[in-house]
Amino acid sequence: MICMFDLLEIKDPSFIKKLNMKELKELCKDIRTFLIENISKTGGHLSSNLGIVEITVAMYYVFDPEKDKFLFDVGHQSYVHKILTGRAKDFVKLRQYGGMSGYINRAESKYDVWESGHSSTSISAMAGILNATDDKNFVITLIGDSSITNGVALEGLNYLGQKKENRAIIIFNDNKMGISKSVGALSKSFAKLRGNSFINGLKTFMTKISIKPVRRLFHKIKRSIKGFIQTDNIFEDMGFDYFGPYNGNDLKSVIRLFTTVKKHPKEPLILHLNTVKGKGYEFAEHDWDGSFHGVPPFNPETGKPLKSCDDKMDYSELVANFLLNKREKEDFTVITPAMIKGAKLTSFQAKYPDSLIDVGIAEEHAAVMAAGSVLAGKKSVLLMYSTFAQRAFDQFLNDIARQNLPVIIGIDRAGIVGEDGVTHQGLYDVSMFSLMPNIMITMPRNLQETIGLFNYAFTVNKPIVIRYPRNAEERHDLDYTYIANPSWEYINKGNKVNILGYGADIERINKLVKNNNIDANVIDTKIIKPIDSDALRVIFENEAPIIVFEQVVSSGTLYSKILEFKENNGFKSKVYSHSYNPDTLIPHGSLKDIYEHYGLSYNDILKSIEEASK
Amino acid sequence: MICMFDLLEIKDPSFIKKLNMKELKELCKDIRTFLIENISKTGGHLSSNLGIVEITVAMYYVFDPEKDKFLFDVGHQSYVHKILTGRAKDFVKLRQYGGMSGYINRAESKYDVWESGHSSTSISAMAGILNATDDKNFVITLIGDSSITNGVALEGLNYLGQKKENRAIIIFNDNKMGISKSVGALSKSFAKLRGNSFINGLKTFMTKISIKPVRRLFHKIKRSIKGFIQTDNIFEDMGFDYFGPYNGNDLKSVIRLFTTVKKHPKEPLILHLNTVKGKGYEFAEHDWDGSFHGVPPFNPETGKPLKSCDDKMDYSELVANFLLNKREKEDFTVITPAMIKGAKLTSFQAKYPDSLIDVGIAEEHAAVMAAGSVLAGKKSVLLMYSTFAQRAFDQFLNDIARQNLPVIIGIDRAGIVGEDGVTHQGLYDVSMFSLMPNIMITMPRNLQETIGLFNYAFTVNKPIVIRYPRNAEERHDLDYTYIANPSWEYINKGNKVNILGYGADIERINKLVKNNNIDANVIDTKIIKPIDSDALRVIFENEAPIIVFEQVVSSGTLYSKILEFKENNGFKSKVYSHSYNPDTLIPHGSLKDIYEHYGLSYNDILKSIEEASK
Repeated sequence: MICMFDLLEIKDPSFIKKLNMKELKELCKDIRTFLIENISKTGGHLSSNLGIVEITVAMYYVFDPEKDKFLFDVGHQSYVHKILTGRAKDFVKLRQYGGMSGYINRAESKYDVWESGHSSTSISAMAGILNATDDKNFVITLIGDSSITNGVALEGLNYLGQKKENRAIIIFNDNKMGISKSVGALSKSFAKLRGNSFINGLKTFMTKISIKPVRRLFHKIKRSIKGFIQTDNIFEDMGFDYFGPYNGNDLKSVIRLFTTVKKHPKEPLILHLNTVKGKGYEFAEHDWDGSFHGVPPFNPETGKPLKSCDDKMDYSELVANFLLNKREKEDFTVITPAMIKGAKLTSFQAKYPDSLIDVGIAEEHAAVMAAGSVLAGKKSVLLMYSTFAQRAFDQFLNDIARQNLPVIIGIDRAGIVGEDGVTHQGLYDVSMFSLMPNIMITMPRNLQETIGLFNYAFTVNKPIVIRYPRNAEERHDLDYTYIANPSWEYINKGNKVNILGYGADIERINKLVKNNNIDANVIDTKIIKPIDSDALRVIFENEAPIIVFEQVVSSGTLYSKILEFKENNGFKSKVYSHSYNPDTLIPHGSLKDIYEHYGLSYNDILKSIEEASK
Repeated sequence: MICMFDLLEIKDPSFIKKLNMKELKELCKDIRTFLIENISKTGGHLSSNLGIVEITVAMYYVFDPEKDKFLFDVGHQSYVHKILTGRAKDFVKLRQYGGMSGYINRAESKYDVWESGHSSTSISAMAGILNATDDKNFVITLIGDSSITNGVALEGLNYLGQKKENRAIIIFNDNKMGISKSVGALSKSFAKLRGNSFINGLKTFMTKISIKPVRRLFHKIKRSIKGFIQTDNIFEDMGFDYFGPYNGNDLKSVIRLFTTVKKHPKEPLILHLNTVKGKGYEFAEHDWDGSFHGVPPFNPETGKPLKSCDDKMDYSELVANFLLNKREKEDFTVITPAMIKGAKLTSFQAKYPDSLIDVGIAEEHAAVMAAGSVLAGKKSVLLMYSTFAQRAFDQFLNDIARQNLPVIIGIDRAGIVGEDGVTHQGLYDVSMFSLMPNIMITMPRNLQETIGLFNYAFTVNKPIVIRYPRNAEERHDLDYTYIANPSWEYINKGNKVNILGYGADIERINKLVKNNNIDANVIDTKIIKPIDSDALRVIFENEAPIIVFEQVVSSGTLYSKILEFKENNGFKSKVYSHSYNPDTLIPHGSLKDIYEHYGLSYNDILKSIEEASK
């Protein structure tokens, strides 16, 4: 494909204002070509960025990036913004160690205003920025239809809607998809906000009426007509001046809308733009389950992933298989916030649609709903990524743990997550759950133990966390009826040193111990809370040094618990910790690269063990 | 006043169904008399309960408490429910140690379904209960206007609104007040939902039309008329069948409404009832700042508190005074979620209305907004109760701490809170903030040090937590310009034992040490994170045992950090901890009683010190 623009040459976005409509359209085309070409090589967030090319270009064309502030809710939809602000050349190392982040990153560019790894924060951030400034410049956020229905965003709307703030513009990107399909009453309500040219015309006309009583009368008439021909508008109910919906992939109409509204806003604006997620790339446009949301490297001609993953099974798939298998035997509910695709639950959903509840990006609601469901007698499994579980902290603490409700909590992507980087690390959940009453925290060391701990979880009458990493393992035959023994387990016997740890790491370390003929006890501490005091006593009694491996931020985690046990019981063995202190922030990069740079390579681990054994 | 009912004789709510309207009204009157009489003696949540007497009585009259489930969002509005379910006799020990909880408590009664200390969870809990059950019984929640605008509740509404669920009834108690005055766009929107008898009539008529197309046409006509005569309805936008508003203090009309709607609901219902907070008690009805929301014992004749607190100053008042004083000298913003009254900020609000932002019960929004405000260059102070800070965990972690934004975070009611009990304990925040990057955690030992640490906070370029307890101290002259030295501080010198701790406890312990001539170092560890390594090294070098006092749940808190330091540096001194393990749940009761029963009496502390010094 021949491109008109050399995107790699862009230094800053000032060139955009000089383009005519034909050139702007060419620019959009070139950006799409660039995105498909580059992301097919590196992987990354493709669909959402393809959908908002025109919107982003129009933002830069109409508004002033040197004065106005552009926010991107859940920053993975910032690729076009990155290209326009001089970072096209960095796409070759997108999401790689030392390379460009896949999210907004203030260290990368002065045009990156608000770091937003987790969705739905941008409206509140905007409110804060407006509070801090008294210039006349706009603060503009681009937010999608699933992000806007999260609790934080709704709180933000509730706050901002009451302000007579004429500098706030919310560009509401409605692709009816979210990561896959949007859920919830509000999504249905958005879908009903059908475009009507008469009303949109009336609206534009009304912005020109300056006499208040006349405006008010027209408003009533408009509402009366609208009441008959279209549904109510939740955004107007909340005090926003609402425009839309318009076709967000029609550059001309987006530019016209932005130009109109920027003239004399009186209230915070919501501009509702319908876009096609994956626009301009056929495979992404027809992707209904979110395969092209976050995509691994793929062949742009066929849309197929470059590496077939069939030889490996990841923990999400394993857990989904387990649940499907289990559901055939007994009744329970799975509740998850917008993770059907991420948690590989599509087969489960197809077979047991009534047993799978996707609540959308609503982690707090998901946790409380699981508590309510268990309270009323239904076994319930709650699946979340570690990083998103942070958003339901109080609900885990107060509603599940304090009430001692036996919710089975699957914490996916525990540990280092790789390419998503600093905002998505699953490194905090062990500290987080460790401070809560009643709750058990567990981590299996392999696929079979994962089944074992889930089966065990179905038998205990307590809230229980089962955390598992993003890694994949070789496929092999698995026994779906196996129940794990909830005690710490020696997976190697030796004398010189006691190596303790949980998760796939301890299995990996065990191989290393065997390969290097290290004379060590290797103990799978699969139950992290409560600790196995009997086992720990025996370990201390052998008086060899102890090294505790944890792929977490360590604050109240296994190492702390072991030190407390040692102190309380007067044991002598030296205890070493291999973990991260809370001030460590781990950036994006492949798991391999991050392991290499953050102390988890074979050599690092070997060195730690050798030091401890001295 | 002569009462018709002996409320103390009520065993269960079955008697209510046999009453006629006159008797039901008498019952309401008697309940009000009882509430005022009892709460004036014990203290407790008065106003909200006075407001919902008729609603609760009508719930029991119309619905079936043996089959239907009654939920009370933020359980402090459950007093009438407690009376009707046989607990009037327990009001003499309301909120006292060993006595009746001020909230819903499943251990107290089979009629207590959902424990709800923190607001806004009941809609999600209801969704869970509905998911778990397939009978025909109703699940009914009573929720107030400020609770419903919190993120969790909005997520719950968004979920439930899309369900064709005919067993869900949300009774929306709109007193336009919340704890004090409701804030936010939605509150304004609720206020506009003006009653119109024509529309309410049309609505009741429409419930009787069974032919779908006819219903739909009538719906359009209704909407068209409504569009002209009243504002849009956010609840209907979200898929609920909305009735109201009605006068929630008019028993007859509430009963009529409940009776009508329970017949053939097709969608989840929202019944909008306007009530007067404090209804029936003049002082409470005219209370605009929330004095009668949670009230100490008072004289029912005058409405005045029994004990004048003028001789003492509590930490909230001190912090409010400090902020007022500071604001006179420099510009900054205070952001708080619905705590103007609780944080004693009314004077600040009166003097600097533009510098004080009450965002309503929206902790997540408050935290992100503070981050945005600081990011854009405005000094910002964020005030929350410890227990409610839990609701913004991810925002503290991701938006404030990870971005290293120097928000000054005042954590009020840190430590044991007393009468509010288990769901409100401020015992988790040190563990919670300890696991986060960049953030400093501090606690002053007295009023002057509180000023000192706040002044210090204004000078550091990091996020900083200053936590302070519910206690009050003797009033004395204070220096508002004092800046604390952010190092650990010896407040007593000795040899036999090192006593470490923070907050008012360490001051209290110091007195005890002096009174008992204990030969101890007493060290105020006012900076909890990061620890003062230099000071700690010196402490370990004296080789006397160390005892660490912390009025927190200990997981990653000071004791852990000290053990890690000891282990890493090979020190020998024995370290004792005086704190709570995460599985401890501390119930309600006066501070004195709880201290007595949970190891914080003088004798307990003395004993701990003696044991450590042996």
